[in-house]
Amino acid sequence: MKLIGEQTWLFQEPIFVEGKGTAVGPKEARGPLGKLFDITYEKLDCGESSWEMAERRIMNDAINTALDKAGYADSDIDFMLAGDLLNQNVTSNYVAREYRVPFLCMFGACSTSMETLAIASALIDGGFANRTLAAASSHNASAEKQFRYPTEYGCQKPDTSTFTVTGAGAIVIGKKEGSVRITSATIGKVIDYGLNDPFDMGSAMAPAAADTISRHFRDLARTPQDYDLIATGDLSAVGSPILVDLLQKEGFDMTNIHNDCGLMIYYSDQGTFAGGSGCGCSAVVTYGHLLDEVAKGSLKRIFIVATGALLSPTMLNQKETIPCIAHGVVFEHVPTSS
Amino acid sequence: MKLIGEQTWLFQEPIFVEGKGTAVGPKEARGPLGKLFDITYEKLDCGESSWEMAERRIMNDAINTALDKAGYADSDIDFMLAGDLLNQNVTSNYVAREYRVPFLCMFGACSTSMETLAIASALIDGGFANRTLAAASSHNASAEKQFRYPTEYGCQKPDTSTFTVTGAGAIVIGKKEGSVRITSATIGKVIDYGLNDPFDMGSAMAPAAADTISRHFRDLARTPQDYDLIATGDLSAVGSPILVDLLQKEGFDMTNIHNDCGLMIYYSDQGTFAGGSGCGCSAVVTYGHLLDEVAKGSLKRIFIVATGALLSPTMLNQKETIPCIAHGVVFEHVPTSS
Repeated sequence: MKLIGEQTWLFQEPIFVEGKGTAVGPKEARGPLGKLFDITYEKLDCGESSWEMAERRIMNDAINTALDKAGYADSDIDFMLAGDLLNQNVTSNYVAREYRVPFLCMFGACSTSMETLAIASALIDGGFANRTLAAASSHNASAEKQFRYPTEYGCQKPDTSTFTVTGAGAIVIGKKEGSVRITSATIGKVIDYGLNDPFDMGSAMAPAAADTISRHFRDLARTPQDYDLIATGDLSAVGSPILVDLLQKEGFDMTNIHNDCGLMIYYSDQGTFAGGSGCGCSAVVTYGHLLDEVAKGSLKRIFIVATGALLSPTMLNQKETIPCIAHGVVFEHVPTSS
Repeated sequence: MKLIGEQTWLFQEPIFVEGKGTAVGPKEARGPLGKLFDITYEKLDCGESSWEMAERRIMNDAINTALDKAGYADSDIDFMLAGDLLNQNVTSNYVAREYRVPFLCMFGACSTSMETLAIASALIDGGFANRTLAAASSHNASAEKQFRYPTEYGCQKPDTSTFTVTGAGAIVIGKKEGSVRITSATIGKVIDYGLNDPFDMGSAMAPAAADTISRHFRDLARTPQDYDLIATGDLSAVGSPILVDLLQKEGFDMTNIHNDCGLMIYYSDQGTFAGGSGCGCSAVVTYGHLLDEVAKGSLKRIFIVATGALLSPTMLNQKETIPCIAHGVVFEHVPTSS
């Protein structure tokens, strides 16, 4: 049995990262990780005629780059799994029609990067695929337009807000030995602490992240100290300390272990409020930066916990709160065989 | 290897249907299958204060019924997989917070019923779960409001339109031997034939259904005659003959083998245009009716191909066409052991 404890899959087959690709917008390109991303755009429209088309462009770029780096054509991929924040997952679904690959679309809000990768890994480990591709994207302007107000309105925001990352990340995984191995995944539950402020999603998501992370430790009988880094997706400067506090109360000390992708992607003077968010945030930080550190061995074992606020404008208008979820995947450095 | 051919999973472990539940609205209750559904509502609002809450009610009902019939509490389920048509999958995500079950949300438009069940089956077969629950829902008024016009506007529609089913279906699967076994699944590709009429989704979806069905036959070296029934989700009276024609051209004779869930659920005088559609259509017809026929042995082997039009009002406004996808699952009768 590969289900360990209650919510964690321990992969028995070696599953390796074979290729990855990232594409980002102008603000992300000027951030601290800017030079690490494969493709960067100087304009937010990425040369396209609508925000939705711009998001489609970057997901296309990320997938093509991942395929190129892995040395594969699309037809070499057994299954593609992807998701995004837009209604009807239009980025993923419209991009998928460009490829000759059976397709599984998922929606986990900003947890989608690790939801797709967890299932993509399970399909390989279970013998359902030799090679899979997982992708996730978000675009600041398409997300703001859909979830809050079009950016053209110039609405002001509180400091607890997060800034949706314009970025897409894709990863090809398979059995060809490489320097990064995917070893386990923990699937989260939907957790709702009763918060309803769409301008403070970090606070809403922190309990879901804490639930998934503490369950992961219990399932595998591990502690934070078994990891060089545990990175949440987009808890921001507001949600991150809440997570650390919640885990401390459960007996897990995250000092020097936790970081948040949303806090890594921008400089503090870039006008991004409490930090980056969106499906693309954890995707580009993980695939564009953190996995390279794992490949080099500067990080030996990391746990990426993508955090999703299942925010719906329609439901908020009906006085509902914001349910949240978090899914995590563990990546480990593979020492070069002597 | 459980991947057979290009897109088909042949499950090696015995996976059985352990429980199922369906809940529908008033029109479905008055249709030819009305008496077979577990819970029926006399009013479209299902006693709730909004269409979205009504859809949530029926998905809740379907899941609770499936759990009850299987004799399980929610905590007995390892993973729950669900999806619906509403933006941000609000039905599934808000329902999921009621249960203590790790949750994977998927979006395949009306293909979601079989997308969730295919992955739910793979998780069991791959050793990632002992028992999973898959669910899908749609509601006529919540879908019309979101995708076209609120029904209160009284817009007229052409005869090629389909009528979104108000219904939710849930299924619990696991290893406890029963009379219906899940034996394989075929994952579809996104296919776009360039159609853009949201009032004729049957024509748009037929090529995706044909692609998945013909690939299924080739992957398993089977023909339509290996099945007692191949039922598509919601191709309607318009899309069904197109499917049969397309498959005929590929050399597959579907005479007397094909039916469409959207054509089974309503009487022709119920004012439902070309037939039923929506995630809930294939879910309630399959879980409420067809699987009982398989259990009895009146159908020995059936292939349910849920068909999804990945329709987006935003994309149609940008002059886009409608990409489509279809995913299929095979159910087989298990003879009582002597």
